Amino acid sequence: MKADITEINTYAKQWIKEAGERIRASFPKTLDIQTKTNANDLVTNIDRETEQFFIEKIKGTYPDHRILGEEGYGDKLDELEGVVWIIDPIDGTINFIHQQRNFAISIGIYVDGVGEIGFIYDVVHDELYHAVKGKGVHMNEEKLPKLKNRKVSEAIIALNATWITENRRLKPELLAPLVRAARGTRSYGSAAMELVYVATGRLDAYITPRLAPWDIAAGILMVKELGGVATNLRGGPLNMLEENSVFVASSGLHAEIMKAYLKSGEW
Amino acid sequence: MKADITEINTYAKQWIKEAGERIRASFPKTLDIQTKTNANDLVTNIDRETEQFFIEKIKGTYPDHRILGEEGYGDKLDELEGVVWIIDPIDGTINFIHQQRNFAISIGIYVDGVGEIGFIYDVVHDELYHAVKGKGVHMNEEKLPKLKNRKVSEAIIALNATWITENRRLKPELLAPLVRAARGTRSYGSAAMELVYVATGRLDAYITPRLAPWDIAAGILMVKELGGVATNLRGGPLNMLEENSVFVASSGLHAEIMKAYLKSGEW
Repeated sequence: MKADITEINTYAKQWIKEAGERIRASFPKTLDIQTKTNANDLVTNIDRETEQFFIEKIKGTYPDHRILGEEGYGDKLDELEGVVWIIDPIDGTINFIHQQRNFAISIGIYVDGVGEIGFIYDVVHDELYHAVKGKGVHMNEEKLPKLKNRKVSEAIIALNATWITENRRLKPELLAPLVRAARGTRSYGSAAMELVYVATGRLDAYITPRLAPWDIAAGILMVKELGGVATNLRGGPLNMLEENSVFVASSGLHAEIMKAYLKSGEW
Repeated sequence: MKADITEINTYAKQWIKEAGERIRASFPKTLDIQTKTNANDLVTNIDRETEQFFIEKIKGTYPDHRILGEEGYGDKLDELEGVVWIIDPIDGTINFIHQQRNFAISIGIYVDGVGEIGFIYDVVHDELYHAVKGKGVHMNEEKLPKLKNRKVSEAIIALNATWITENRRLKPELLAPLVRAARGTRSYGSAAMELVYVATGRLDAYITPRLAPWDIAAGILMVKELGGVATNLRGGPLNMLEENSVFVASSGLHAEIMKAYLKSGEW
């Protein structure tokens, strides 16, 4: 099977914009959504409906494509042969409930295990980030420049406070020195948005100990397409069939942090 | 002197919108701003020009009003008699440089020490948050509802990772348990935006150990106008003539955190 990337890309873009319109239309007119007792149900329904919307579109057009989705309506996969759509219908669910912003639709399209197309759609602000392997990354119609290398002392790093308190995944001492050395840290609560922030240069790195494939499938394509590096916290490759720790940065910054703070993975 | 709040409010709104237009016009057309070697100069100039713009407008219309501003072109004050404009021309300077978003113009207008009017303008998204004491808070034309009380376990709290590593202001052990107990933490790098996020219910609390009066003058008015509580980290009043630690939340959540995590200020 030879995948027609251009055609897939055209359909995917059309479907993601349509899904975004549906999500926007689902918002109540007031800012009062978070007071409804059924806020959790609401978001679960929208999550599910959005995933099912994509599955219908994809299976209707490409019956042989497979789908890996957060809500579990897709396929069960133990390899990545052929065309696989890796979908998070709403990345940043807590933000969606509490903020009605800072969430995104994330879709990565992989062919025989290689990332070919990535979309991250900031629905509320109508900003569509879009990578095609070898052809760069765009925000709407605007082409993004390659990533710039900053030193840790000049870098803004996405890193949640949880990972420097006692937790089940990382020793707090590992990253605390990085928090102190960086120019600043931020935390937005959506992996897809944080990866887009690295791709656009608004952040210089993103570090987190556990994400699912659909959280990162699109975002890591964008970062890599712009010359950045995406690995797990020990510097190893990311696996799109299981959970990973994730460390994304421009190449020089990645090397500096890997050596000085993540101790070349020897922990 | 009897201040005409309605008139002051009308002028202030007009001036802040005009200042926002100037800032937007100053952005280069590309996303490449952060690569310029003079990015820091650029932002300093815009910061200064914006403050001077407000000073000219205010002094031209109200020669007897006084101004407390981040850039230092205003007055030196040791009391708050009469009408005092407390201005941060760009709150979130690092975000302005690195992200060209997540910054705001913040203006609080105090009469004889009492906060009467607050504006926070998210320039990039053209969202103007606007409080008038006793008359509620609006985002553009939309009235914001009163704050809802959430428990810590359901709350999203703005709290930077720095404050749970070794630092000069707070013992890391003080807030680490709160990070673990909360539903989530976020950090956006702009006090004005973080206060607006509490006012809109997108965040439930904001905690930080050191801010200047211009960082908080407008935002705490909004939170208080919507039934929230704004104190320092020991539960005491905020002073608009000096730096403060700042803890802002809905009233029930404020009490819960004050008692269980900030130990009623006894540290």
